[in-house]
Amino acid sequence: MSKPNRRPPLGLVIALVLAATMALAREPRAQGPDGQIGAIRALLDRQSADWNRGDLDAFLEGYWQSPRLVFFSGGDRHDGFDALRDRYRKRYQAEGKAMGELSFSGIEIDILGAGHEAAYARGRWQLVLPDGQKPGGLFTLILRKFPEGWKIVHDHTSIAEPPKPPAPG
Amino acid sequence: MSKPNRRPPLGLVIALVLAATMALAREPRAQGPDGQIGAIRALLDRQSADWNRGDLDAFLEGYWQSPRLVFFSGGDRHDGFDALRDRYRKRYQAEGKAMGELSFSGIEIDILGAGHEAAYARGRWQLVLPDGQKPGGLFTLILRKFPEGWKIVHDHTSIAEPPKPPAPG
Repeated sequence: MSKPNRRPPLGLVIALVLAATMALAREPRAQGPDGQIGAIRALLDRQSADWNRGDLDAFLEGYWQSPRLVFFSGGDRHDGFDALRDRYRKRYQAEGKAMGELSFSGIEIDILGAGHEAAYARGRWQLVLPDGQKPGGLFTLILRKFPEGWKIVHDHTSIAEPPKPPAPG
Repeated sequence: MSKPNRRPPLGLVIALVLAATMALAREPRAQGPDGQIGAIRALLDRQSADWNRGDLDAFLEGYWQSPRLVFFSGGDRHDGFDALRDRYRKRYQAEGKAMGELSFSGIEIDILGAGHEAAYARGRWQLVLPDGQKPGGLFTLILRKFPEGWKIVHDHTSIAEPPKPPAPG
């Protein structure tokens, strides 16, 4: 009698290796997009809280600190994190300027790609300034997941036409 | 002498199944993003050509025909393909209206996600109308790859302030 073959059946080996490899390949998907949506939502909540505390530097931590960051504001394109920071400092922190109260509403977040490493967020922004002005409008953000977390890599913010003042007389 | 074992070595089987599964899992990546960028670029070129031929329906084929399509225009949000089509028809095809000459410039396309099934495109748009008006501004598009090809699922278009007319006198 020959020595019994101790190897498992070939089909079983193939099935097991296949299953294990598929599971590994899908690992990022298994994380589920819900956790990612929550992380991005938390980033936006943190940003408005930082803004309303007057902490512009903390607010800016939501952005990718890269020359490749792009910010579209109305008709103007700003390239790079430094340009974005300088614009915010001039606009909201120069003498006689105020940051006011920022809020986001109607936020929708969509995770893009099977690996859940990119997303976009859209919604409405509203600022209430001490002088009574209330600029507001819409935003579209593209975000990427970096080892240190989600960061905005592209920001398109547009401002709504201010409501017309009542006709005089 | 016992019958020789005709099975290939177990290690070889595991390696082959692993390699094949990894290759399958990576198949979309193997397509490369360059082809996808080209496809999106072609969609935008087709859209401006369709517009300039006065073929609004063909232009609109670049959009996802879904109630979930979202269009941000300045401060206004429009939900759904039908709302987008109606807006374009009223604005550019009603009596006394003209579509004019549309051009895109500075287009940048970035493929998102390991599966290459989502992307964003940004750039500048310029319209030249028969009455001499030249509205223009910036756009951010989110695109998804469907079985029938790439479609815009979110469009954020903003208009630049028109240049101030020279001071009189």
